Amino acid sequence: MSSTYGKIFRISTFGESHGRAIGVVVDGCPAGIDFNEIFIQSELDRRKPGQSKITTQRKEADEFQVLSGVFEGKTTGTPIAMVIPNEDQRSKDYGHISNQFRPSHADYTYSAKYGVRDFRGGGRSSARETAARVAAGALAKMLLNFDSITIQAYVSQVGKMKLNKEYWELDLSKTENNAVRCPDETMAQQMFDYIDETRKKGDSIGGIITCIIKGVPVGWGEPVFDKLHAELGKAMLGINAVKGFEYGSGFAGIELYGSEHNDEFFVGEDQKVHTKTNHSGGIQGGISNGEDIYFRVAFKPVATIMQDQESINALGQKVIVSGKGRHDPCVLPRAVPIVEAMAALVLADFSLRAKSNRIS
Amino acid sequence: MSSTYGKIFRISTFGESHGRAIGVVVDGCPAGIDFNEIFIQSELDRRKPGQSKITTQRKEADEFQVLSGVFEGKTTGTPIAMVIPNEDQRSKDYGHISNQFRPSHADYTYSAKYGVRDFRGGGRSSARETAARVAAGALAKMLLNFDSITIQAYVSQVGKMKLNKEYWELDLSKTENNAVRCPDETMAQQMFDYIDETRKKGDSIGGIITCIIKGVPVGWGEPVFDKLHAELGKAMLGINAVKGFEYGSGFAGIELYGSEHNDEFFVGEDQKVHTKTNHSGGIQGGISNGEDIYFRVAFKPVATIMQDQESINALGQKVIVSGKGRHDPCVLPRAVPIVEAMAALVLADFSLRAKSNRIS
Amino acid sequence: MSSTYGKIFRISTFGESHGRAIGVVVDGCPAGIDFNEIFIQSELDRRKPGQSKITTQRKEADEFQVLSGVFEGKTTGTPIAMVIPNEDQRSKDYGHISNQFRPSHADYTYSAKYGVRDFRGGGRSSARETAARVAAGALAKMLLNFDSITIQAYVSQVGKMKLNKEYWELDLSKTENNAVRCPDETMAQQMFDYIDETRKKGDSIGGIITCIIKGVPVGWGEPVFDKLHAELGKAMLGINAVKGFEYGSGFAGIELYGSEHNDEFFVGEDQKVHTKTNHSGGIQGGISNGEDIYFRVAFKPVATIMQDQESINALGQKVIVSGKGRHDPCVLPRAVPIVEAMAALVLADFSLRAKSNRIS
Amino acid sequence: MSSTYGKIFRISTFGESHGRAIGVVVDGCPAGIDFNEIFIQSELDRRKPGQSKITTQRKEADEFQVLSGVFEGKTTGTPIAMVIPNEDQRSKDYGHISNQFRPSHADYTYSAKYGVRDFRGGGRSSARETAARVAAGALAKMLLNFDSITIQAYVSQVGKMKLNKEYWELDLSKTENNAVRCPDETMAQQMFDYIDETRKKGDSIGGIITCIIKGVPVGWGEPVFDKLHAELGKAMLGINAVKGFEYGSGFAGIELYGSEHNDEFFVGEDQKVHTKTNHSGGIQGGISNGEDIYFRVAFKPVATIMQDQESINALGQKVIVSGKGRHDPCVLPRAVPIVEAMAALVLADFSLRAKSNRIS
Repeated sequence: MSSTYGKIFRISTFGESHGRAIGVVVDGCPAGIDFNEIFIQSELDRRKPGQSKITTQRKEADEFQVLSGVFEGKTTGTPIAMVIPNEDQRSKDYGHISNQFRPSHADYTYSAKYGVRDFRGGGRSSARETAARVAAGALAKMLLNFDSITIQAYVSQVGKMKLNKEYWELDLSKTENNAVRCPDETMAQQMFDYIDETRKKGDSIGGIITCIIKGVPVGWGEPVFDKLHAELGKAMLGINAVKGFEYGSGFAGIELYGSEHNDEFFVGEDQKVHTKTNHSGGIQGGISNGEDIYFRVAFKPVATIMQDQESINALGQKVIVSGKGRHDPCVLPRAVPIVEAMAALVLADFSLRAKSNRIS
Repeated sequence: MSSTYGKIFRISTFGESHGRAIGVVVDGCPAGIDFNEIFIQSELDRRKPGQSKITTQRKEADEFQVLSGVFEGKTTGTPIAMVIPNEDQRSKDYGHISNQFRPSHADYTYSAKYGVRDFRGGGRSSARETAARVAAGALAKMLLNFDSITIQAYVSQVGKMKLNKEYWELDLSKTENNAVRCPDETMAQQMFDYIDETRKKGDSIGGIITCIIKGVPVGWGEPVFDKLHAELGKAMLGINAVKGFEYGSGFAGIELYGSEHNDEFFVGEDQKVHTKTNHSGGIQGGISNGEDIYFRVAFKPVATIMQDQESINALGQKVIVSGKGRHDPCVLPRAVPIVEAMAALVLADFSLRAKSNRIS
Repeated sequence: MSSTYGKIFRISTFGESHGRAIGVVVDGCPAGIDFNEIFIQSELDRRKPGQSKITTQRKEADEFQVLSGVFEGKTTGTPIAMVIPNEDQRSKDYGHISNQFRPSHADYTYSAKYGVRDFRGGGRSSARETAARVAAGALAKMLLNFDSITIQAYVSQVGKMKLNKEYWELDLSKTENNAVRCPDETMAQQMFDYIDETRKKGDSIGGIITCIIKGVPVGWGEPVFDKLHAELGKAMLGINAVKGFEYGSGFAGIELYGSEHNDEFFVGEDQKVHTKTNHSGGIQGGISNGEDIYFRVAFKPVATIMQDQESINALGQKVIVSGKGRHDPCVLPRAVPIVEAMAALVLADFSLRAKSNRIS
Repeated sequence: MSSTYGKIFRISTFGESHGRAIGVVVDGCPAGIDFNEIFIQSELDRRKPGQSKITTQRKEADEFQVLSGVFEGKTTGTPIAMVIPNEDQRSKDYGHISNQFRPSHADYTYSAKYGVRDFRGGGRSSARETAARVAAGALAKMLLNFDSITIQAYVSQVGKMKLNKEYWELDLSKTENNAVRCPDETMAQQMFDYIDETRKKGDSIGGIITCIIKGVPVGWGEPVFDKLHAELGKAMLGINAVKGFEYGSGFAGIELYGSEHNDEFFVGEDQKVHTKTNHSGGIQGGISNGEDIYFRVAFKPVATIMQDQESINALGQKVIVSGKGRHDPCVLPRAVPIVEAMAALVLADFSLRAKSNRIS
């Protein structure tokens, strides 16, 4: 189990879906940041269940408490512990699967690896764990504010339904206006209907989240192994249900010739170095070059569905797994703040690592 | 700069393209492994330049020396240092770019981050650095032999030319039979011709490498942040020119419903747990489930082309960058052993981490 | 701030003396350990204030709660979070020093380093933080039980009052029989009286804790930098008020000739390898050799005294610091379980690291 | 095996006493440092064998080569690899002990831990490995020059022969004037004679090295676990033959009352905060306070002696181990630069960690 991320701005998360609480300790956050509890809660609210009829109807207030590391409204440089009590612990919903391995869930692998397994709601493998990341990510965003960095994610595809616009054609301030978190209102409505239909069928569907980061200074990222996009990729792939990551031109870029793909440099009117195109996605040689960073994250359809499926139990006997409980038919809308949080955690760490590179 | 990878099986690479040598120190390799120098050299030979007319014509023997950690043919548990001297140091080839920022290269970002830059052949940002990873990866493969794990990568796409077969339809033993490293001979010839045409135009082209890992025991991977696929993704994204990573159903899987995508469990004739389908790509909840692991890695077209491009120099003045020297028109064929090496390094580390999970 | 310790059995502590709570997250504890809450509480009770008239009269129940990582009485392999709420938060006791730098405290250095400082009871620099270590150390002891390892510390010196007996001449089961935690009853009484006199004078006094570890298998420790005694040393020096560490023959051993100091090997009646003497303190070349491990830890007199002292405030003005509040005149008796806890944490980590060294 | 030290300024050493070479890779050294090869060689010369008749008569030029990370005389921010070839590889000197466990050496523990052992000259457990640390430490000193920090170690005790002067009573510039590296010339001569007598008897003797560090800014060190003195202690205890570490008042300080031991603050004529006394040894709460840092390191007598000793071989049979080869009767004189190097490595790492604490 490795629930620790980051080299300098380092988080350790803990907690199971139906245990007493989930939470996070942030070790390495600099002192002197105004600790904005309202902002943290608002980020948690973006992720919490029960937001609309296309998200799970579970009720969790997801109210966090800070236990340490903040004094008179400011971070003190000491570890910041945040805890979110679990309220809705209907473990009876899960008794029927205590001994079953649900298809494409982590039941089997956790059982095989650890021998013991908290089966209630997926235990540690539940996406509920990501609430702790969102709390820590909100703190990371506060740190990144000092560099005026913005991180904005949105849903760009649900199933086969694809938003065919580039990010600069969109008004990203509209992302939070609808339940899907797609900044294009027409597409958002179509996606909403599609997810709702899928829900009614007792099925689930995947999609893509696009994330745009603006304002990262030139020079963040630590080649050769901790390249900026490599850490972003690791962070995204560490989110439940993620199957793929691409940045800049990504998979599509392979079909271009080098003469088409290369980003030529010029000096802009702002007297700064820029590139004419940005196939590089703001990162060259693993280091930010000052252009917008953008990447795309693929989420598979949620494994929990409201249909009968064949599987086996811990004794290897054939069983029928029936979906119960309250689940998301599509994880994408609630995953938007998670993608942003993980991106913020990666950048916060690199911002501090960049400072440590200097002679004086 | 972070040139260290791995938590227990940990490598530190060093060296610039045109410095005295490149190399690697492996700290954490268990004692008692038969150290097969011939195998290591054969892996390096798969990566070395000058293999065919579609790879760079630079001549580097890439002969490695082991400096430590091996005694009477066996690893001793102490750090294993391997060094590959640089022979072909024609730095005069690079004098003309000492002050220029080549488009889509790391020249600008390294200059901005470090102030100082070894411009000869890309210095540290050169793909030459990956030879050290291949040497370490060969050692990792020796460790993985104890678990009978095989890692086989191949070129599955070049530009728009795509091999439309699943890996189980291919005879992967044929991969090394051609210069492209595509196991389908007809497609290999087409790809070869396409790359050669691209070379003649002084241009470059990207592609996809698919990697298949068989034999990984159930239980490797460390959620929630160090999921097996998250580390594989980081490792692949850390290879020069990589723009994307997907495993299992990947980006295509998002278009399936959960009822289609879920992998149902059953007990096979071998009395082991299996899944009927393998959209999970052998990994569930970040932990290997015993099925084949497979993933795809997207490489952009190489930035160095033999055509004139606009750019700027360190003073911000407009310049024309002209391609010189001897470069690969397509990095894919030589990247196959690099993908395998990085996969081996990830797995070797997780094999040791898995041992440390146990009570006794 | 680095409040994380351990490579595999890794703890992150958090919390200030007078904040909402202190606590710890243990990431990397193997699954399947019977989680003995009563034992953990009993270890915390050994450290808690108010045990006798020679310890501080503050009242803290130090009752811990486990938030995660335990299911049906067993560890699950996931992070274990333990929290100890702070009950006695009389911050008014500290208002008078909010702006003062108490001599030999961390007030000045924390202020200079972080800019912000939680001055209540020393904040993060308070020894209260060590309660979290004791909780985690109790868990580490449970893991070490599988190897039948015992860790026993005791007070061997207070001020100039020195117990002139070797550990094998003592009955260590008597350590907990008295308030000083010295296994020699006569000496314990003398030490008690001495500490009590010191208390009445409003002064404080230091001393030495000796720690004996039995049952460590041959082969734990990771040279060249993470030698077993080097990590023990780091762990001990990380405890508040510690000024020195020695193991085996220690500082006294330097006066011996090699011919006197060397430990000759023989095979004992148990058919195991032993040494005739044990100046090595059970560790050779940084690796345990199967003999008893023993070391000594020097604690300075507590900085807080009930006498007036000259100092300065944050403005650099001369002030008189007057001791108030309820403090320990001698930290040694309550530090015994802390020394044991840190030793247990070091060994738990090395026990898991040792497993990861093996080929199969 | 953990041959890696440091979090940001991170070194990985490698090499056996009689292998092809020893060396070190430094990952995380900032760019732009003037790389002074002559200084590095001069530091290696202070450590090399054959300096006088009281050190081993082995001949090793210990000439280093830099393989990477330096361009046009400056560090580039990329890993710096330095290699020292082994010249004097008389392995025949060691054939007689290939199967024997020399008393108080690491032969037995390495054999038990790793199964395989390079017995030539102690292999990896040889103090020869420390040459790589000295090379890296010289680089660390160059980094610390930017803060005008000086690190000066000297021999303060040999056997029972003790230099009874405080460091401020000594002229530390005289340390290098004699073969013992004691700045007091009279005492140096006595120590020299004593070591030489010990050598003639075929025996060995231990001692103490005192180290003084001046100029460390306020604020270095990372509590609660990575306290500045805790890392110094770990680094010193990681040097071969070290048995103890104390800083500031150390073991002697335990006999003082708090009212005697506390260091009162005042503002000096330089308008900076100072303490009237310095029992704290320049570190409070694990963080440097701007005063001189001083500590003492205890070295046991070298295990290799020219006398017959009883022991066993790998089969458990009783054998007589006879000293052969060329060894140091007292390791102290040559250990002075090693102590300085390790101190420099600790401080270099903390200097970079301190930068990463800041908001902007």
